[in-house]
Amino acid sequence: MPTAENFRWVEETVSPLSGGRILVQTIYLSVDPYIRGRMRNVRSYAPPLELDQVIEGGVVGRVVESKHPDFRPGDFVTGRLGWQDYAICDTASLRKLPNNPALLPAALGVLGMPGLTAYFALLEVGKPRSTETVVVSGAAGAVGMIVGQIAKLKGCRAVGIAGSDEKVRYLTEELGLDAGINYRKTENLRRALKDACPNGIDIYFDNVGGPISDAAITLIRLHARIIICGQISLYNLEKPEMGPRNAAYLLVNRARMEGFLVHDYVGRSQEGIEQLTSWVKSGQIKHRETIVVGLEKAPEAFLGLFRGENIGKQVVQVADLNGKLLSAGAKK
Amino acid sequence: MPTAENFRWVEETVSPLSGGRILVQTIYLSVDPYIRGRMRNVRSYAPPLELDQVIEGGVVGRVVESKHPDFRPGDFVTGRLGWQDYAICDTASLRKLPNNPALLPAALGVLGMPGLTAYFALLEVGKPRSTETVVVSGAAGAVGMIVGQIAKLKGCRAVGIAGSDEKVRYLTEELGLDAGINYRKTENLRRALKDACPNGIDIYFDNVGGPISDAAITLIRLHARIIICGQISLYNLEKPEMGPRNAAYLLVNRARMEGFLVHDYVGRSQEGIEQLTSWVKSGQIKHRETIVVGLEKAPEAFLGLFRGENIGKQVVQVADLNGKLLSAGAKK
Repeated sequence: MPTAENFRWVEETVSPLSGGRILVQTIYLSVDPYIRGRMRNVRSYAPPLELDQVIEGGVVGRVVESKHPDFRPGDFVTGRLGWQDYAICDTASLRKLPNNPALLPAALGVLGMPGLTAYFALLEVGKPRSTETVVVSGAAGAVGMIVGQIAKLKGCRAVGIAGSDEKVRYLTEELGLDAGINYRKTENLRRALKDACPNGIDIYFDNVGGPISDAAITLIRLHARIIICGQISLYNLEKPEMGPRNAAYLLVNRARMEGFLVHDYVGRSQEGIEQLTSWVKSGQIKHRETIVVGLEKAPEAFLGLFRGENIGKQVVQVADLNGKLLSAGAKK
Repeated sequence: MPTAENFRWVEETVSPLSGGRILVQTIYLSVDPYIRGRMRNVRSYAPPLELDQVIEGGVVGRVVESKHPDFRPGDFVTGRLGWQDYAICDTASLRKLPNNPALLPAALGVLGMPGLTAYFALLEVGKPRSTETVVVSGAAGAVGMIVGQIAKLKGCRAVGIAGSDEKVRYLTEELGLDAGINYRKTENLRRALKDACPNGIDIYFDNVGGPISDAAITLIRLHARIIICGQISLYNLEKPEMGPRNAAYLLVNRARMEGFLVHDYVGRSQEGIEQLTSWVKSGQIKHRETIVVGLEKAPEAFLGLFRGENIGKQVVQVADLNGKLLSAGAKK
């Protein structure tokens, strides 16, 4: 498990802008579990972070200065920048956001990478059919909260697994899932899942891995799909835990387990954002962000992800919409 | 592990034939690992065998008596019958075989269920592309020997894992695989696989499960496919062994692990048999059967599968082509 001591606060002067680039001030910063994978020196889909490198993170920001004709000071943008107050960047990786303050943090959640992950992973890998049963782990997290709701929109029975009674209430009372299970209070998770899924599991959307997934996989049905989207329960293990081998469940049920990375759908993100935006605006998909204030809280917010402290998308608010730095960061 | 004591020899009088049915004498009998799954009282793709039930098995037989216009005494047929000298059966599940004595046992191997398994699982689930690397476990078994050769025909690098030096020689010297690994003599299987697969593994065709698969899965490449066709190393465990959780490999590589059962391709078996027959006749696919003689040897031959005693398809020859019972069975 990383600690606050693994992070360092560094101040530097902002360099002058060269042509075509823009200066963005961070308003909201996303902290994401996948960053943990980049904090170790092993091959993965992205190279490891270098020591002393600024940590990468999704940002919603405000253009402060622009040497690009399409971007003007005051525009809101989102892109993968870093855990910092200001960033100088190319515009290629930025997307302009509508000037809608209420939806700005959502650009890091339901209307951003986590929403697109839920959308493409569930629909393209899972291919849910109505009346099927979808189980999602990490169900009250940034991705999970969207998965359960899209499953409902597609006519499925949706069951969420989460780590607190409050989260379970959120899933069933606010988001409309058919059942929720607090795995921390459940003695026999397999039995609880079986009760919640009387017909078995057609799609298991896995954000967590470990014993929760072990239990779910024992209940898959013929031609089930298991979407491996995250394995957050394993990211901080000092050495790999062993688990029951489950390939025989795939064999018997001719089921499929498949890894998913939203990056592979980058060419279709426009389509995903439009659909998710329309669902959000019509109220068919609800969303929540857990917001902490101050850039200096980023490490704490990040570490809190592994303790399941967030409901919905965990966001750090670094500045207000006018660019005033918030909290301790404001004094620096 | 089952023992010879779990089997019983029973003699009964053959009942008279009713209309539309035929009496088939077993010439060759197939023993198959999947039967082990039916010897336990758990849900699977087929119901468990009842106590005292005749064990089901693929048979190549000779029609002895027929009340069906399309079948005449002396015709050779194949179908899923049982571990018995004679069977009365409907014709719906039977397929007539050409009168080609040399290829009759192959109707239980390369030109039967194992061949179709290799064919459809590799081509439809694996979808190999030329220059990809295919690793197959149980490579000298009935399914594995065909998988490696089809991989070569498709232009892939083919690597086989088997349990003896003799099998490895068979794979590389007779079947033309690029490399073979005797897992019983290899201290570090992962390293041996890495040496044999310098570009990593694109398709892992799994017949065995367990530690061999654990090692292979650590070497999968981007968009790899893992075909779960058998898990023979696990079928006789008294309680499930634990293994390293491997979903993170799927996640990072956006890889897919999928269970396969040839039954799902029954509608295309004609196509598969024709292609395999053409490859066999042209010499592009070689095959081998390990044949033991005498129906009373069926339990021993079956148990030998789990010790890896067979090269290629394990067959029991029950009678000669003229119907003379062979071995001890002949005296009964």
